[in-house]
Amino acid sequence: MSHPGLADPPPALGQPSILDLLDLERIEENLYRSSVIVPWPGALYGGQVAAQALHAAGRTVPAGRLPHSLHGYFLRSGSAERPTVFQVYRDRDGRSFSARRVVAIQDGAVIFSLSASFAGPRTGAERDASVMPPAPAPELMPAAPHAHHVSMETRPASHDQLDWRIPARFWCRTTVPLPDDDLLHACVLTYMSDWSTGLIALEGDDGETGPSLDHAVWFHRRPRVDGWTLIDLVPQVVADDRGWYTGTFYRADGVRLASIAQETLFAPPRR
Amino acid sequence: MSHPGLADPPPALGQPSILDLLDLERIEENLYRSSVIVPWPGALYGGQVAAQALHAAGRTVPAGRLPHSLHGYFLRSGSAERPTVFQVYRDRDGRSFSARRVVAIQDGAVIFSLSASFAGPRTGAERDASVMPPAPAPELMPAAPHAHHVSMETRPASHDQLDWRIPARFWCRTTVPLPDDDLLHACVLTYMSDWSTGLIALEGDDGETGPSLDHAVWFHRRPRVDGWTLIDLVPQVVADDRGWYTGTFYRADGVRLASIAQETLFAPPRR
Repeated sequence: MSHPGLADPPPALGQPSILDLLDLERIEENLYRSSVIVPWPGALYGGQVAAQALHAAGRTVPAGRLPHSLHGYFLRSGSAERPTVFQVYRDRDGRSFSARRVVAIQDGAVIFSLSASFAGPRTGAERDASVMPPAPAPELMPAAPHAHHVSMETRPASHDQLDWRIPARFWCRTTVPLPDDDLLHACVLTYMSDWSTGLIALEGDDGETGPSLDHAVWFHRRPRVDGWTLIDLVPQVVADDRGWYTGTFYRADGVRLASIAQETLFAPPRR
Repeated sequence: MSHPGLADPPPALGQPSILDLLDLERIEENLYRSSVIVPWPGALYGGQVAAQALHAAGRTVPAGRLPHSLHGYFLRSGSAERPTVFQVYRDRDGRSFSARRVVAIQDGAVIFSLSASFAGPRTGAERDASVMPPAPAPELMPAAPHAHHVSMETRPASHDQLDWRIPARFWCRTTVPLPDDDLLHACVLTYMSDWSTGLIALEGDDGETGPSLDHAVWFHRRPRVDGWTLIDLVPQVVADDRGWYTGTFYRADGVRLASIAQETLFAPPRR
């Protein structure tokens, strides 16, 4: 699958796009596979496997139902250079909600376990207890490198963070156009949501944040992430070698799209 | 199982204690049952089934490992007057972490699905990005009624909340002494964590919060909830008929014990 019309900066030669990553092969009912290789020698990016697992789950729910939340555990380190199989369990299809569980498998071992819930569109009260923090327009800010995040472009959202030492509040957008598919936008948002930089403000000079332990996303409103999205990560607490931070995703016009929470190891892994 | 030495106020005659609720019968390897009936005609309290599921999971992990996080989905309304069976799946026992999944079953249907992770004690950096909010001492505040929360005593933690209209910050303690068992304290904290009043500040006069959809708890430090615990719930957003709030548990001396996040329906249920 190729995507002409890429925005700048173009991906490196041979680099798949976020759409390639989400384009899972259907092996059988409830069984999907990603064979796209990201030429990245490190561990599999958690946001990738979470986004793919959510896409697999979303392909099994009744039409019109979209994810409103997901909860996942990273059980083993995965490889970006191996295929991943996604087994979907249809836990429930109720009148208003569909519950799915997905296990992501590499080499016979579960590397990630996801639970997600889907619901049809409803309209009701809209109340936000807070507003988007002030941030300079992304067009005014320099680009920031995130080489191993596929099809993503980021910019600092604070003049204090120009050196990118504390990238806890930043703009993000895809470098490829996204189709008009709400599930896909939710998956791309999920891909963006495991940056794991939410604890950097609590780190010493060495950088102590380790791998993600768990991950949760709540999609408050219809996800749209083809424009600039403000990602605001807030460090909360570090104790017992584990750190916990929360985060909020805002559309550029200030609408709160989603919230996240994540616990990470705060020391070298010994799993 | 009876518990003499109850603190005041005593439970109503025939009312089980929180220790009775957590005292699951072991049916078989990985299979537990709660047969304790809470004389409460409404739906099963979510905090109860979450606490019991965590206890079932915790009884299957290697000695010395304690829960550091849990994520659950409420899939169907349960009954407080029926037994609940807990089936534990041992997803992984690694060198440092144990992952468990539990399904809670009534009448052949899964009412709650839990994922939890356990780890041994570690010591490392301790950094808190915020401190406990100021609150009047619980001894100075009047008792508040919470009839269907077993063995729990609560008091407002703000003079503005004396009428109990906005019980989003309050003191809580058990009315029974708790044994020196860290898993049990984590389960009691979980029991305390589904009060679902975190969104009341965003409600209209009618009270619009519906049943809990999901639930997550992160245990940052060794849980101890036999003294007064400050529970600080923060409303975040309501949209698409769903509301989301976060919360923090502090020991009375200001130590941040745990954090929670929960999504609830914000309208009458149509599940």
